[in-house]
Amino acid sequence: MTEKVKAVVVGAGYWGPNLARNFQASNDWDLGAICDLDIERAEQVARSIGGAPVTSSFDEVLADPTVAAVAIATPARTHYPLVLAALDAGKHVMVEKPLADTWERGRAMVDKAQECGLILMADHTYCYTPAVLKMRELIAEGSLGDILFVDSTRINLGLIQPDVDVFWDLAPHDLSILDFVLPGGLDVNSVSAHGSDPLQTGTACIGYLALPLRGGAMAHVQVNWLSPTKIRRMVIGGTKRTLVWDDLNPQQRVSVYDRGVDIGTVSKATPADRREANISYRLGDTWAPALPEREALGGVVAELASAIREGRPARTSGESGLRVLSVLDAAQRSLGAGGAPAPLELDIRPRTAA
Amino acid sequence: MTEKVKAVVVGAGYWGPNLARNFQASNDWDLGAICDLDIERAEQVARSIGGAPVTSSFDEVLADPTVAAVAIATPARTHYPLVLAALDAGKHVMVEKPLADTWERGRAMVDKAQECGLILMADHTYCYTPAVLKMRELIAEGSLGDILFVDSTRINLGLIQPDVDVFWDLAPHDLSILDFVLPGGLDVNSVSAHGSDPLQTGTACIGYLALPLRGGAMAHVQVNWLSPTKIRRMVIGGTKRTLVWDDLNPQQRVSVYDRGVDIGTVSKATPADRREANISYRLGDTWAPALPEREALGGVVAELASAIREGRPARTSGESGLRVLSVLDAAQRSLGAGGAPAPLELDIRPRTAA
Amino acid sequence: MTEKVKAVVVGAGYWGPNLARNFQASNDWDLGAICDLDIERAEQVARSIGGAPVTSSFDEVLADPTVAAVAIATPARTHYPLVLAALDAGKHVMVEKPLADTWERGRAMVDKAQECGLILMADHTYCYTPAVLKMRELIAEGSLGDILFVDSTRINLGLIQPDVDVFWDLAPHDLSILDFVLPGGLDVNSVSAHGSDPLQTGTACIGYLALPLRGGAMAHVQVNWLSPTKIRRMVIGGTKRTLVWDDLNPQQRVSVYDRGVDIGTVSKATPADRREANISYRLGDTWAPALPEREALGGVVAELASAIREGRPARTSGESGLRVLSVLDAAQRSLGAGGAPAPLELDIRPRTAA
Amino acid sequence: MTEKVKAVVVGAGYWGPNLARNFQASNDWDLGAICDLDIERAEQVARSIGGAPVTSSFDEVLADPTVAAVAIATPARTHYPLVLAALDAGKHVMVEKPLADTWERGRAMVDKAQECGLILMADHTYCYTPAVLKMRELIAEGSLGDILFVDSTRINLGLIQPDVDVFWDLAPHDLSILDFVLPGGLDVNSVSAHGSDPLQTGTACIGYLALPLRGGAMAHVQVNWLSPTKIRRMVIGGTKRTLVWDDLNPQQRVSVYDRGVDIGTVSKATPADRREANISYRLGDTWAPALPEREALGGVVAELASAIREGRPARTSGESGLRVLSVLDAAQRSLGAGGAPAPLELDIRPRTAA
Repeated sequence: MTEKVKAVVVGAGYWGPNLARNFQASNDWDLGAICDLDIERAEQVARSIGGAPVTSSFDEVLADPTVAAVAIATPARTHYPLVLAALDAGKHVMVEKPLADTWERGRAMVDKAQECGLILMADHTYCYTPAVLKMRELIAEGSLGDILFVDSTRINLGLIQPDVDVFWDLAPHDLSILDFVLPGGLDVNSVSAHGSDPLQTGTACIGYLALPLRGGAMAHVQVNWLSPTKIRRMVIGGTKRTLVWDDLNPQQRVSVYDRGVDIGTVSKATPADRREANISYRLGDTWAPALPEREALGGVVAELASAIREGRPARTSGESGLRVLSVLDAAQRSLGAGGAPAPLELDIRPRTAA
Repeated sequence: MTEKVKAVVVGAGYWGPNLARNFQASNDWDLGAICDLDIERAEQVARSIGGAPVTSSFDEVLADPTVAAVAIATPARTHYPLVLAALDAGKHVMVEKPLADTWERGRAMVDKAQECGLILMADHTYCYTPAVLKMRELIAEGSLGDILFVDSTRINLGLIQPDVDVFWDLAPHDLSILDFVLPGGLDVNSVSAHGSDPLQTGTACIGYLALPLRGGAMAHVQVNWLSPTKIRRMVIGGTKRTLVWDDLNPQQRVSVYDRGVDIGTVSKATPADRREANISYRLGDTWAPALPEREALGGVVAELASAIREGRPARTSGESGLRVLSVLDAAQRSLGAGGAPAPLELDIRPRTAA
Repeated sequence: MTEKVKAVVVGAGYWGPNLARNFQASNDWDLGAICDLDIERAEQVARSIGGAPVTSSFDEVLADPTVAAVAIATPARTHYPLVLAALDAGKHVMVEKPLADTWERGRAMVDKAQECGLILMADHTYCYTPAVLKMRELIAEGSLGDILFVDSTRINLGLIQPDVDVFWDLAPHDLSILDFVLPGGLDVNSVSAHGSDPLQTGTACIGYLALPLRGGAMAHVQVNWLSPTKIRRMVIGGTKRTLVWDDLNPQQRVSVYDRGVDIGTVSKATPADRREANISYRLGDTWAPALPEREALGGVVAELASAIREGRPARTSGESGLRVLSVLDAAQRSLGAGGAPAPLELDIRPRTAA
Repeated sequence: MTEKVKAVVVGAGYWGPNLARNFQASNDWDLGAICDLDIERAEQVARSIGGAPVTSSFDEVLADPTVAAVAIATPARTHYPLVLAALDAGKHVMVEKPLADTWERGRAMVDKAQECGLILMADHTYCYTPAVLKMRELIAEGSLGDILFVDSTRINLGLIQPDVDVFWDLAPHDLSILDFVLPGGLDVNSVSAHGSDPLQTGTACIGYLALPLRGGAMAHVQVNWLSPTKIRRMVIGGTKRTLVWDDLNPQQRVSVYDRGVDIGTVSKATPADRREANISYRLGDTWAPALPEREALGGVVAELASAIREGRPARTSGESGLRVLSVLDAAQRSLGAGGAPAPLELDIRPRTAA
């Protein structure tokens, strides 16, 4: 059995307690401390998980040579300085979504980690749910065929956030999942974003993202803070089968439909030829794979340990978090341009040798 | 009791039999004939409704002075010549959706009807369903408050059409309903359309329309021919309540949610003020009005009769059909421009005096 | 191609028009006439299906040597005299459910048909739906393993019937389906019926049937005229898999669950041993077979033709209808005895040699 | 503010941690200790709630004069001796469901508490959920009118229990809820129970209870450990409205339907008259009251404190638990008699003066 290494959870707010509980329960990790400027909040979290050291000093954490990794669960605007400091101190880092509050800062964080030879991992928790892992597996093994379209809906009566709009609040989930399950990752040229702020709160409460994937498929994401009902639904259409993930249906979260349209192959076909060619409709069976009940965050902390041990990027790497940021960044520019498609930020900064 | 007047159904294809059956069953109408170039098809429809006269000559229909109205259920590209001829012959006209295959032709048809002083009605059948009538009523009486957003989804495994894309095939339903239920009708400045043709059939099979309404709200329409599951769902969010119409749930088609976000009114508030102002969340009851079971098309033919009798535009007038066309037309231009917002066709042709 | 033979539909009430339409559309049958004492009703039905001969004289129908079969869709209390007369006249007969209004009369009808060497078929329409046919096929091929239990729910706000209770009105559907899909048919020793007439209408509006199947499994049927929601759901549990038929979910009517409890086999095991033995839980995949969209009644009239042509009992034979009656009869006696289990009517009348 | 009093949780198994957490969080209570023979298990629970005293000695708990109440969460067969000892020691007692493993023991426990003038409360947790509290309120205020029927379904793939059957495992939930919400409580004359043990585990895995309520309505309970799908659904039909509680639909747990059958009142009507009288059908609106999100067990421990403080029986009293036992006891006898109705145990032991 491998020896446990020490991790510190930074930030004892909404998400920190979940991280702390999972590091505590892990066979890979010792929970070195819970760190928060508000020491009482840190103590409360420590009590809730049956006891753990606490500290209000991030510097102390960084100075401790026995700490191998820090998990940052603080507000997005603080990620940049905290992560850079941790990397400078030689710590591996896991960060809450979104990776940073701007694409440029995310870019700098990823570069820094690479320079330092340290792991920078994005805590894209959804990617470690049994449903998303199964989706990735099915797509990877070709069960769906080539991907034709993705449609994701994430709506409910949500909290109006003071500082971020509905895109930055909710879409990172959908985008990080797309990056995780699609064969080519989140590989888009441009983004069209349509938002609305009908209550005049100063930020969009309703949003739509149209993302033409480089392979020719279309991805679309709907996010909404004003919906009276809650929907968490992603449809991934393929040439062979189409998958529907309905996260609020615990009895059948993932359904795979052998239903679709087949176009007869005609060599050198023009579109008109194809239209005239034999179009047929598949109306086959539906299949819903059994999924284990397992807390995703347990997989997250295990992946962090494995990546460090094996000296490889985490499955949800900093690069992955950066691809999410690049879409959000383009979305913001599209919104500013009245919904006109905005190209993704070019990756201009030279990369260190891979 | 009012005397029955004579109507002729033109086109014995998919929709014609339904029209014929409803004219036949109506207390307002005599079904004068079923007209189709393919006389056998006309005869088959006539038999299916218990017998009716048939003809293959449209000219004969127009020449018959006892025919007051014709209902055109032929392919969209034929609407323009048939409708103009019928109006020239002094007949009132009802036309299947879409009103015409281009905005310009629709414009000419509406103008012609106005010149002739005849009714031109769009057969927007959905508008006469109990659910949509109730939606219109609730919005009109202020139950939802001001409209904040509309989101409509109309997806299923549909027939790939040889000559129209998914926008022209499905979106007229959503657009005509919006025109019917919204206080200001379908009043938009521009349209952003995102489509995808992942099977390379030559026309979009997947489509999204973002429609900023002039009042500040956002309407959005999703249409898709490749979805393995069928969804017919429209959400209309208001300042007071939000309505969800789920047409595939016969036990609760329309639900009205007293759930939403309230922003405390602050005089001369800037957006920042409003954000800081008292935001509160309503989590109230849900109410689902009882709806009668009634065939919508019965209401359509009754409305045509009433409009003629009362010398007033039909509730789903030619103008309404034209507003739908203007959005489809702009959508086409937006598609051509890679999804950039396209303004609606300006109404340049001078109108005859109202 | 086989020659068409002539059938007459007797009874132009609720169900007759559907029968007439399907005989009319069949390649096996000529619709000889629609027969009803109320000739205007017969004419109305004839018109609705595009024309057919009508008559008000049942005697005339029986006297016509070209009529091979009659389909009886009259009230249950008239089945006995009409069917006996038809059999006497040498006609094959199909009868609506329930076969007769008492078990004794049903018994006599079945015997008579056997004596005459004629087909007596029960119109158990549900058995010819794609869903029930698939259920029968899956059970027959062993996909579910041994049957452990059946639970059927058939409830909605139904019409309070003046002359029959909710058991006689609704349960024949469930019972005939059980007879059709279970390997041993509807093979029960006794019936416990619990009914309630809370509105004091004179007949039960709410009913429950507990039916211990001879093989050891339990079947249970719930029927209710007072439920505000509509449920049509049957669960069939087996040692290998469990099937759920939800007839109101057109997107997934039949689901097969690889979920259940396995008991490790222990030789000479007492129950206590078995309890202690290795109990394990299967939590496998769900599978929903594709089902064609097809009108069941087309299969009914085709089966009548096949049974006549091949000189074999229909798949839903008079015997099958009689087994349904025997359960209803026992249920009535159980109700009278306050819910105590009532044995099924013994088959005392000597059968002609099989 | 009232002073906190001390409670001890006895039993650190499945339910104990929840009790401990809620006593800990309560403003009414000090959690005196967690008591379990397995001291390590007690310590584990104590840690999980942020620390609490532990003990393995029940005698020590009883000897501590500062302990006002004990909450017993041990196996059912141990309730009788533990509760009697606690009452003898002058402690108020709350007990998990079922109150005891036999009706006689439950009877003795209730009598003892009455003699001692101490609170004996049944932890019928479901009764303190927002949904059940709302159901009770709606029925009490007459929103449903007179109760006509109750149908409860509680099925899923459950753990086969070694020592209790599915009735004793699951039905206490339904029965305690009925006792809580019905105006007259769980007031039945007899019980018919139908069970099945198709896997031959020695105890019923599938069960049905028919419970004619004294007021004329019928209650029915379905429990099943072998269902592949999970259903938690109760329908309560009334003369005015019918309520459906679907506990697995968090977006609309409770729906109230203004749908039903009305029988015109005819003085001195015989059933035949009533049948002929004007039957009409209400097809009105559906209403789903908003329900707070709140943990039921918080209400349980608050109710125990209030009952002690106010010197009144708890809302889910020992008597209530005894009524549940009396139905389970009769069900057992009905099962033994092949499903024949079994009368409820007469209350033969003389009660001390109220």
